[in-house]
Amino acid sequence: MIDVKHIEYLKNVVGEDDIKTDKAHLRAYSYDATKEHFYPEAIVFPENEEEISKILKYCNENKIVIVPRGAGSGFTGGALPVKGGIVLAVEKYMNKILEINDKDMVAVVQPGVINSHLQKEVEKRGLFYPPDPASMDYSTIGGNVAENAGGMRAAKYGLTRDYVMCLRAVLPNGEIIRAGKRTIKDVAGYNVRDILIASEGSLAVITEITLKLLPKPRMKKTYMGIFENVEDAMNAVYKSLADGAMPVAMEFMDSLVVKALREKLGVNLPDWAGALLIGDVDGNVEEEINYQLGILEKSFIENGAKEFIATAEEEKSKEIWFARRNASQSITIYGSKKINEDISVPRSKLPDALKGINEIGKKYNLTVPCFGHAGDGNIHVNVMVDGNNEDEVKKGYRAVEEIFKLVVDMGGTLSGEHGIGLSKAPFMKIAFSEAEMNLFKRIKNAFDPNGILNPGKMGI
Amino acid sequence: MIDVKHIEYLKNVVGEDDIKTDKAHLRAYSYDATKEHFYPEAIVFPENEEEISKILKYCNENKIVIVPRGAGSGFTGGALPVKGGIVLAVEKYMNKILEINDKDMVAVVQPGVINSHLQKEVEKRGLFYPPDPASMDYSTIGGNVAENAGGMRAAKYGLTRDYVMCLRAVLPNGEIIRAGKRTIKDVAGYNVRDILIASEGSLAVITEITLKLLPKPRMKKTYMGIFENVEDAMNAVYKSLADGAMPVAMEFMDSLVVKALREKLGVNLPDWAGALLIGDVDGNVEEEINYQLGILEKSFIENGAKEFIATAEEEKSKEIWFARRNASQSITIYGSKKINEDISVPRSKLPDALKGINEIGKKYNLTVPCFGHAGDGNIHVNVMVDGNNEDEVKKGYRAVEEIFKLVVDMGGTLSGEHGIGLSKAPFMKIAFSEAEMNLFKRIKNAFDPNGILNPGKMGI
Repeated sequence: MIDVKHIEYLKNVVGEDDIKTDKAHLRAYSYDATKEHFYPEAIVFPENEEEISKILKYCNENKIVIVPRGAGSGFTGGALPVKGGIVLAVEKYMNKILEINDKDMVAVVQPGVINSHLQKEVEKRGLFYPPDPASMDYSTIGGNVAENAGGMRAAKYGLTRDYVMCLRAVLPNGEIIRAGKRTIKDVAGYNVRDILIASEGSLAVITEITLKLLPKPRMKKTYMGIFENVEDAMNAVYKSLADGAMPVAMEFMDSLVVKALREKLGVNLPDWAGALLIGDVDGNVEEEINYQLGILEKSFIENGAKEFIATAEEEKSKEIWFARRNASQSITIYGSKKINEDISVPRSKLPDALKGINEIGKKYNLTVPCFGHAGDGNIHVNVMVDGNNEDEVKKGYRAVEEIFKLVVDMGGTLSGEHGIGLSKAPFMKIAFSEAEMNLFKRIKNAFDPNGILNPGKMGI
Repeated sequence: MIDVKHIEYLKNVVGEDDIKTDKAHLRAYSYDATKEHFYPEAIVFPENEEEISKILKYCNENKIVIVPRGAGSGFTGGALPVKGGIVLAVEKYMNKILEINDKDMVAVVQPGVINSHLQKEVEKRGLFYPPDPASMDYSTIGGNVAENAGGMRAAKYGLTRDYVMCLRAVLPNGEIIRAGKRTIKDVAGYNVRDILIASEGSLAVITEITLKLLPKPRMKKTYMGIFENVEDAMNAVYKSLADGAMPVAMEFMDSLVVKALREKLGVNLPDWAGALLIGDVDGNVEEEINYQLGILEKSFIENGAKEFIATAEEEKSKEIWFARRNASQSITIYGSKKINEDISVPRSKLPDALKGINEIGKKYNLTVPCFGHAGDGNIHVNVMVDGNNEDEVKKGYRAVEEIFKLVVDMGGTLSGEHGIGLSKAPFMKIAFSEAEMNLFKRIKNAFDPNGILNPGKMGI
């Protein structure tokens, strides 16, 4: 329990109204998209970096846990106060776009800015911020940076990391640092910026983010390849990319997802459809787009696609994307609880990975629909269980562990974009050696020797 | 002095022939492109990661300094054994391309592979490794990673960092770690990969590098804009990019370089030429390339270019590039010694930066020709002095210090691609606060508590 004197001190820092300890607030900040609950002891709403610095310095000296929080939309519990302490919430005040500069082609934002809000603002000026996690309408840029969020467009445009030029952050001891520069190139000093990205709020509290922007491509078309089976589709993914295609996205849905889309949402797809690949290609001139579509069509057909559709019409495009955008909700027909993992493998291993996952599903007698960002090797694997059946849930987690082992053996990773947080922490030892885990601990210690920042995450 | 028993131990590890202590070897490994000399006490040529692990473990236990070295072509003394010790040279054995995989579009290389050798090998397969530092014909991928090398193509394609998917490395205690994965996305654990990149061999010895490859663009054209003065050219840089141009390169030469090219090499340029912008645009279809050239031409002319040339002919392209490729050697007409810095600023600050640098040159009565990668804000600033005039050399360094202060005040960095090493270490305090420098020291300590790896660099 945090002593009342500490709460009083923090009230002096942020003002009476910006620290909350009432039950309603504690509950509201106790959960995230994992739906697990851990109650904090207080929630603090700082107005600026200086307040954050004072909060951290005091909490560090008094060994009080601080858990930074954006929108709380993470899938792995990154924002959960699993060891209690104080949630530091940025959404109330630190939610401003400070600058959109079309000369330098950068945006400077506070951590609480909503991703899609930033996207819209920069697009008004003919600029483009590519990272588009599925949560973009509610997740914050701060959270995106803390988890290195991906999204549909990562196949061509990369991840949040690829757009972060510099950060301002507060260390647990209250010191304010800058990491990186508002320049394309910077090789001075250790790359603190990139170690803060995806560190899940466990090393420092990010207070300002400078993002690189691109010119907005002038046009796009949408494509869909329909395959009889998953193996053909998975071959088409890596072979079409190796043939030189650079689609914005290449999204995959397996036969279970196709079935669910048909049954739950009445999506009109051929009877024989056993896998889909959906995406956009973009560019500045029609010829480039058609060149891209030409590679995709040829390669998809060579690898077994029975149908290839391409369209520039917005209505038709929306219809195609409807399938992908509703994949996640459609598969609830297979079980009340979804154990949702986001493994990533080298692209040529996709056919074997999907085959192996299917076999693990059979072994445990569980349904495991898969979909996701195949173009970058990142697949959302959904182990469906009856949430009220404790034994089945346990069985589900055993299946997940086996899937992780399979993926790591193939040179893949536990998480392509969701992070480790709490949910995947028990599996870190599958992916990392003792030497690597010890190095992580020493890095943590270099930033946060008292262990006050978001403890209990990442297995560290 | 290293005790002879230590040399004997290391002989047992690598074999009699692969550790050298004779004068000729000590001299050969005492310098790099800075032309400064620091003699090591021995040079060791490990054959593989296991040997490197044994060497480091032993040297760590006995507190013997190890300086990893690629080709020794760095401009900031990164490979210089300034505190003596043992140079660990990778060029003899660890110089193999282990794999070029067109399914995953990756290359796996040992650190001693020469950059241009890799480029040629991947291009044979229709693939593309973009980072092209000026040293590419002799610098190693290991060195490129250790310094995060840039190059001409960084304006469109980014830096070495943007292509490193994973590393194998040996920690000073001999532990072998992997950092990153052979996947596009990976957010598991702290991002050790990116902190090793640009760490100048001071945290770990890199033993294997997995690089992302792209499809090779099918065609390119070369352009040149000729301006009357530097300010117009600098405005054209950031305005054309803000207008949506994405050239592969946008290389700048100022009026002093133009004069030197004319006088020393007889390059044919108009009398009125006071600045050049040169580059390539690439793509898969002619229309895309012409679209890019259209933006560049319009924007260059709007910003004062008096001539804009574009060509698809190889001979004409070579002629244009001749000016840029010989910029560095042409300016030797201004002085026997070149104090060569590679500052980088936010692109919209380029006009002010060049103006300020010019004023500092005047103040110190020194000639300061500038050229470089303007498209990414990175300019090579050459303070020319008489190398035999000690006072002038000192004055040159005072001018450099003032230039760094100017650049940092503009939000720029001490180094866009050359690194800090020895040469820029005294200037680190201009760019970083005490809190930031202390954090660097704690990071160093997390990897290398005994300080055996490449000490005396980066001001840490």
